[in-house]
Amino acid sequence: MRRKLMRRVSLALVSAGLMASALVGPATAADDLRKQALEVFKPLPSTIPAVKGNKITPQKIELGKDLFFDPRLSASGVFSCASCHNLTTGGDDNLETSIGHGWQRGPRNAPTVFNSVLNEAQFWDGRAEDLKAQAKGPIQAGVEMANTPDNVVKTLKSMPPYVEAFTTAFPGEKDPVTFDNMAKAIEAYEATLLTPAPFDTWLNGDDDALTPDQKKGLALFMDKGCAACHSGVNVGGHGYYPFGVVEKPGADILPPNDKGRFAVTKTAGDEYVFRAAPLRNVAVTRPYFHSGKVWDLGQAVAIMGNAQLGEALNDGDVKLIVAFLGALTGKVPEVVLPVLPAETDATPRPTAEVVKP
Amino acid sequence: MRRKLMRRVSLALVSAGLMASALVGPATAADDLRKQALEVFKPLPSTIPAVKGNKITPQKIELGKDLFFDPRLSASGVFSCASCHNLTTGGDDNLETSIGHGWQRGPRNAPTVFNSVLNEAQFWDGRAEDLKAQAKGPIQAGVEMANTPDNVVKTLKSMPPYVEAFTTAFPGEKDPVTFDNMAKAIEAYEATLLTPAPFDTWLNGDDDALTPDQKKGLALFMDKGCAACHSGVNVGGHGYYPFGVVEKPGADILPPNDKGRFAVTKTAGDEYVFRAAPLRNVAVTRPYFHSGKVWDLGQAVAIMGNAQLGEALNDGDVKLIVAFLGALTGKVPEVVLPVLPAETDATPRPTAEVVKP
Repeated sequence: MRRKLMRRVSLALVSAGLMASALVGPATAADDLRKQALEVFKPLPSTIPAVKGNKITPQKIELGKDLFFDPRLSASGVFSCASCHNLTTGGDDNLETSIGHGWQRGPRNAPTVFNSVLNEAQFWDGRAEDLKAQAKGPIQAGVEMANTPDNVVKTLKSMPPYVEAFTTAFPGEKDPVTFDNMAKAIEAYEATLLTPAPFDTWLNGDDDALTPDQKKGLALFMDKGCAACHSGVNVGGHGYYPFGVVEKPGADILPPNDKGRFAVTKTAGDEYVFRAAPLRNVAVTRPYFHSGKVWDLGQAVAIMGNAQLGEALNDGDVKLIVAFLGALTGKVPEVVLPVLPAETDATPRPTAEVVKP
Repeated sequence: MRRKLMRRVSLALVSAGLMASALVGPATAADDLRKQALEVFKPLPSTIPAVKGNKITPQKIELGKDLFFDPRLSASGVFSCASCHNLTTGGDDNLETSIGHGWQRGPRNAPTVFNSVLNEAQFWDGRAEDLKAQAKGPIQAGVEMANTPDNVVKTLKSMPPYVEAFTTAFPGEKDPVTFDNMAKAIEAYEATLLTPAPFDTWLNGDDDALTPDQKKGLALFMDKGCAACHSGVNVGGHGYYPFGVVEKPGADILPPNDKGRFAVTKTAGDEYVFRAAPLRNVAVTRPYFHSGKVWDLGQAVAIMGNAQLGEALNDGDVKLIVAFLGALTGKVPEVVLPVLPAETDATPRPTAEVVKP
């Protein structure tokens, strides 16, 4: 049975031109479970991860936090990063797809910002290589924050405390208030948003951190092949796979007009390919999938069984896997709300106008 | 000159059928300034103010904080109380009028939530007698959060941690999760949002807490008659006065279709009557007036001089009064973001649909 599944997964991955880097060994006794899990997963780091091309400093973090919460980064003055990546509700907005400028709908479900620094790339299609690239997207997207880099910089330069904070966070730069530096500061703040979970405690050696059902669910998660894609420190967030390796889900869940990574690579093989979703905090970030069409985690697991593994998981197995996924719900870091600089006469006025392209 | 002004103000107030409870004595030497000010103003209380019909407890405050930040109190799942009463930007949204459900505009500028517990009544027209009555308004308003009490209660009851928190906050009640109790909890949290300002430090005896210009501005604020309406602990927030006691401002600032308190009392004398705005944090809560049409504080002061006092304040006086108003910008209490309960299968789904009445 297991061999058949692994073959099926391997075949599917190979047929998609992909091979998981960490393949899964057999789950036997409970004693071996951790050893096996540590071959596939990694506990969260105990310190803020280093980020390529952006040395993380306390000054950048502090500035980035202000920016993350500042609604004046949007044209309307209504939305901040925290609107759709709400730190009170799992780091996302719990909507099918986000609502933005002019009450327009974003095209895909907003992923959680928690632990997102650990993803190999950002967005469902991986089109941003890191969080500093990602942060620039929604601010400019007409259906999200609908702003322009020029207007953002003008806004930030209009408030002396921001100018001071940029000068401190980017020492030695002649003109530190830039759109790029804004994105770097936001990335620095987001890199602090890690949520250690019971699964980490267990990986780190505490046998009691998982319930018996969660351990059974973990074993199933590895045995059935889920961990072939959802692996590593973020239990996913790296690697690109077709949604429907074995069987395409219905058009309600996989809308035909969103071809995923194809839009990035223009390669036929990337049609309906998405980055494997990182699963930390998945239990508190419904609804699911890039389309946000599935609200029940068990249903999402069952769909993945059919679509990616070609296996109709029974209700008992689904329940155990859901129990394991619950062990990925982490402790949210304490966030003290910033007090933002006040506007001045030079601050551009907010506009609610919707400019159609 | 002073006598003429006081007569003018008194006449204007009498002609509006109103008389300020605290009239203003003459400002002479700097030594007398505090004594005179204490006849008109009061420093913030050092403890959370008691609220009529709602004993404030730590449990209610904690629950109310969760509710204040919970976007699931809105039909769309997009807006929480904190959206328009943003604690990072002065307790308001810094928009002319708020943007709500369906990208609709609210009819009036959102006032700051900071120190609002000290207002005699809530809303620009005083139509809610307290914050627990106020809290129910925006949640149900079609252009704001567009929800219904039934759907709110269903939402809250669907999340066990909320049921537990209501049970703890309202002990002995058989069915504690109610729309009324939600409002009471929000009121309890909002009562904690006091912002002690340099003006309080000065009123409490620290001569150096105000700059010389701020002291001059305070003296002018009292001498010119501003303090006839903007008095008390919240420097306003009590008493109803016509906007345009002496001279009606233009239709851009006082739109003819918003007759203010007339809509509440249906009394002809209440046409274009509004509650005197509380002025704490006024320097960080632009734009100004119920219409939100004025973005510059100096301009707002000048308009008030003409409209309410019949006096064209010179630029120097305006500048000094603005300096004094800056001394009302308070220290925002430290707010740790709550981590909200996760939705369950029983939680009503968000809807972005705009239902036209």
